[in-house]
Amino acid sequence: MNASPLPLPEVLISEVGPRDGLQSIARVMPTADKLRWIDALHAAGLREIEVGSFVPARLLPQMADVAEVVAHALTLPGLTVMALVPNLRGAEAALAAGVHKLTLPVSASTAHSLANVRKTPLEMIEALRSIAELRDERAPGVRIEAGISTAFGCTIEGRVSEDAVIRLAAQAIAAGADESGLSDTTGMGNPAQVKRLFTRLRAEIGEHAGAAHLHNTRGLGLANCLAAFEAGVRVFDSSLAGLGGCPYAPGASGNVVTEDLVFMFEAMGVRTGVDLPRLMRSREVLQQSLAGEPLYGHTPQAGLPLGFVSA
Amino acid sequence: MNASPLPLPEVLISEVGPRDGLQSIARVMPTADKLRWIDALHAAGLREIEVGSFVPARLLPQMADVAEVVAHALTLPGLTVMALVPNLRGAEAALAAGVHKLTLPVSASTAHSLANVRKTPLEMIEALRSIAELRDERAPGVRIEAGISTAFGCTIEGRVSEDAVIRLAAQAIAAGADESGLSDTTGMGNPAQVKRLFTRLRAEIGEHAGAAHLHNTRGLGLANCLAAFEAGVRVFDSSLAGLGGCPYAPGASGNVVTEDLVFMFEAMGVRTGVDLPRLMRSREVLQQSLAGEPLYGHTPQAGLPLGFVSA
Repeated sequence: MNASPLPLPEVLISEVGPRDGLQSIARVMPTADKLRWIDALHAAGLREIEVGSFVPARLLPQMADVAEVVAHALTLPGLTVMALVPNLRGAEAALAAGVHKLTLPVSASTAHSLANVRKTPLEMIEALRSIAELRDERAPGVRIEAGISTAFGCTIEGRVSEDAVIRLAAQAIAAGADESGLSDTTGMGNPAQVKRLFTRLRAEIGEHAGAAHLHNTRGLGLANCLAAFEAGVRVFDSSLAGLGGCPYAPGASGNVVTEDLVFMFEAMGVRTGVDLPRLMRSREVLQQSLAGEPLYGHTPQAGLPLGFVSA
Repeated sequence: MNASPLPLPEVLISEVGPRDGLQSIARVMPTADKLRWIDALHAAGLREIEVGSFVPARLLPQMADVAEVVAHALTLPGLTVMALVPNLRGAEAALAAGVHKLTLPVSASTAHSLANVRKTPLEMIEALRSIAELRDERAPGVRIEAGISTAFGCTIEGRVSEDAVIRLAAQAIAAGADESGLSDTTGMGNPAQVKRLFTRLRAEIGEHAGAAHLHNTRGLGLANCLAAFEAGVRVFDSSLAGLGGCPYAPGASGNVVTEDLVFMFEAMGVRTGVDLPRLMRSREVLQQSLAGEPLYGHTPQAGLPLGFVSA
């Protein structure tokens, strides 16, 4: 469609702020602001955005307008429009709305899975199977991602078996997911573990290995992303201004900050396709719409280094 | 002296807070608080501390009590007591005070060097030569470290030649330094560059290759430490609570945070010899003595993960 003269990005930054960020904040961002924000992210060069989740509005009023947000995002050229679905019913609505990609959280920790979606991990695999069948029937072009959450540890169970994580990812692919990534939902991961698990994941499911969704809870977000990159991962979830992802306290954000992640890769000479100054300016939407909400990110505060050249 | 049954640490965390941290803060920490802080750091297992700098008190009143601080630190068993000296006069005073190790900043950027110490890089190499001669004469057991500052970029000159950095480190060793490390004074480094430069440094000066002194200005501090570790570096400078090191804005601390660095290594299974809960409790001295000063660190805010086992 677009025979762009620009070299292709070497990593894909998958922005999760409009879903993961907004669902962690009590107040509801007005739909018009969501659309402005998504437009700004797209204009900065982001090509995959998780725009919302298809969950009952009584549970997450922040996501009540998700179909409208999806409809707008679908008009942006070259953008992969993603949404989270917790179950078959959510998947039906998401497919009806026309999303390009579904993501389903499958927790490796039974305790977390029950607390989060009231299903065991294997029940989630069965839900995934039904969703994949529905997709095959109604919209075979739509991709399904299974994000293995609590893959690096659980706040309820503590350590999570690495074998169980890898087995679950393989089961997700066998049940019909196109890709399976690993999520450090609780910010417990470390670079050695991240490298080991993603290496095992690629050995187990090959090209179906999906995104690294890593958190900055203990400050290791970027170090963990670097470790994942070294293990061959090329898709990274992150959130503008580090919005969302279970923040514990000011300064201890949850999600990896998109601005810092893009800075790291571009400074290393790894192309992200993202215009960093423009990305940083897109924080203005958040500053206006979520005034008072803590916005994270070191690079936006320090500015780009003198003589900085993007990759 | 101490035939400890504990396995030796695999990395050495060199705490720079009492020097780098305090000199960046306008107010003067009372001597008694400095001693309490150093005691707490030592009790947590840190075995190298940069306790101050030997500079004229009219320039840095924060360091006026450095000889007294050194005298106290020398009483702590197993501790390498380090001090920064900018010139021969400082070195004379430091040697007279009995430090175990001197560190001299040698900037790779001429503009930064002139602004910082009013000498060109080569004039600093000559100063280093005089200091090494003095050391040989008066205290041959004392080690000298040359920290190559602005090694990853300069806020005045922008990019800094990597060849010049490596050449300068080699000149420092030839002039009598025992070790030469690289400092990301300006927080401009990225993991690819850190790995490349430390690999070159080791190829050039072998076992004389010294510490990684990396900053978190743009959030890449730990990712850069990981890259340095992968390049074979085993000594890391950092600062409790990220104190000091040219902070730009709240949340954008300068120095790598010791607590987060220790957490990263211990979680990876790399022994630091540091008792992490005790290290985190040592922040109390700063909270009391420097009330109102921003203290950084994600791990102290989030706490250790459930089931965490140190290396």
